[in-house]
Amino acid sequence: MNHNISSKSPIGIFDSGIGGLTVAKAVMDKLPNEDIIYFGDTARVPYGIKSEETVSKYSTQIAKFLIGQGVKMIIIACNTASAAAFKAVQAAAGNIPVLNVIDAGTAAAIQSGKKVIGVIGTLGTVSSGAYDVSLKQANGALTIKSKACPMLVPLAEEGWTDNEVALQTLDIYLSPFRNNGVEALILGCTHYPLFKQPIQEYFAEKGLEIIDSAESVAAMAENKLDGLNLLNDNTNPGAFTCYVSDRPQRFHELAERFLGREPENVFVESLKD
Amino acid sequence: MNHNISSKSPIGIFDSGIGGLTVAKAVMDKLPNEDIIYFGDTARVPYGIKSEETVSKYSTQIAKFLIGQGVKMIIIACNTASAAAFKAVQAAAGNIPVLNVIDAGTAAAIQSGKKVIGVIGTLGTVSSGAYDVSLKQANGALTIKSKACPMLVPLAEEGWTDNEVALQTLDIYLSPFRNNGVEALILGCTHYPLFKQPIQEYFAEKGLEIIDSAESVAAMAENKLDGLNLLNDNTNPGAFTCYVSDRPQRFHELAERFLGREPENVFVESLKD
Repeated sequence: MNHNISSKSPIGIFDSGIGGLTVAKAVMDKLPNEDIIYFGDTARVPYGIKSEETVSKYSTQIAKFLIGQGVKMIIIACNTASAAAFKAVQAAAGNIPVLNVIDAGTAAAIQSGKKVIGVIGTLGTVSSGAYDVSLKQANGALTIKSKACPMLVPLAEEGWTDNEVALQTLDIYLSPFRNNGVEALILGCTHYPLFKQPIQEYFAEKGLEIIDSAESVAAMAENKLDGLNLLNDNTNPGAFTCYVSDRPQRFHELAERFLGREPENVFVESLKD
Repeated sequence: MNHNISSKSPIGIFDSGIGGLTVAKAVMDKLPNEDIIYFGDTARVPYGIKSEETVSKYSTQIAKFLIGQGVKMIIIACNTASAAAFKAVQAAAGNIPVLNVIDAGTAAAIQSGKKVIGVIGTLGTVSSGAYDVSLKQANGALTIKSKACPMLVPLAEEGWTDNEVALQTLDIYLSPFRNNGVEALILGCTHYPLFKQPIQEYFAEKGLEIIDSAESVAAMAENKLDGLNLLNDNTNPGAFTCYVSDRPQRFHELAERFLGREPENVFVESLKD
């Protein structure tokens, strides 16, 4: 499929829910003049418990919606969809480049030059081994140590990112990484950038490198668009438009927390099964 | 619809996931000789974010499945389904009695004779106002004070029910109930019985009555079956059979935590949309 895209076209970003707004924020920070269209599949979240086939179907529906909005690039912000649906989304996207957070986090880990890589993520992401596969493919000599941190998503959604409960939870999950030789730690979940500062402080003395896959995919997007001569040369701040498949409880409060500002243009868009 | 049921028939219990196993446990404790068939809709959990229509459709599918298994009673263990689908399940069940946790919690609160009732539950349950409606219908003079406690479900699933993180989280959520006149507190979520002991200890000095809707619905089931002359007079322990629509991460570990013992007979049963 061929699509007419130009440097003025928006960047499309999608996630199973609103966590991917941390990726939207990272892209905005890196490329402030780009228009961004975000899709959060809030009606069907979470993807982590669904079959690969279902995640692939949902992701393709969203990709087609974004293509219909004229995007020049698709960023898969969801770790589950990155693992299960990258090829399907690429097939649907034709000549439109598709990036995903797992490949971006992997690329950043490789660039760090570290040999022992830690990965934290949801139960679904960690048990899928998606980062292990991707990292080992990039460099078979890497040692990878992963840990599922199921409490961090609900903590982020409750807005508890640096209170006593959050710090104690981080200590329970992260203490093994203090003495297991890990030199760089990938934040392998869209919600985790909200804990970046307390995690950095936790490891301050160890000098562990923290790899934020939201920032990694934003950097990858800049490189890719630059290479394709598709960077927007607008001098005004880009527009941000947010689509959700359902308006969840406390949507605006959560969106503001993840995006770092209130999203102005929010539309509910039901996708067909 | 008429169904052939007898005192030997099993009791059917269903929930959106595995949290309802706390209800199954309460029924087992109260009626140890009854056979129980449990259905957890783990493929489509959580119900709290879905429309009333969808929850009603899913619940009816499950009710029909349980009826197909020959149950003599259906207990809706899920708060969301209790509010959204009680009438639809009753319609599907014909002459089979249907109980639900919201009516059971309400009945126990009325029986307590207290006038100021607290309710804790998920965001979905609290913002639906389902307990408020039910309690006010039973006694318009009651004062009701509700609080959503979103962290308690993930804490229960992580197995953190009495560590420092759990106790601090309980303190944040429950401290308002120390001085707001509440005399009885309904645990309005299937996961919350796991926190019953720390909650009782938290309010030990205040003498607050804790209403566990799992125990309430088990007591209601006993009364109802007794009245219908449908109590099983077996002298052997009843059989427990567990159906789930998908086998979630760490299913056995979680099931054991909620049920208080390992479920032996677990089957995956996909329901048609």
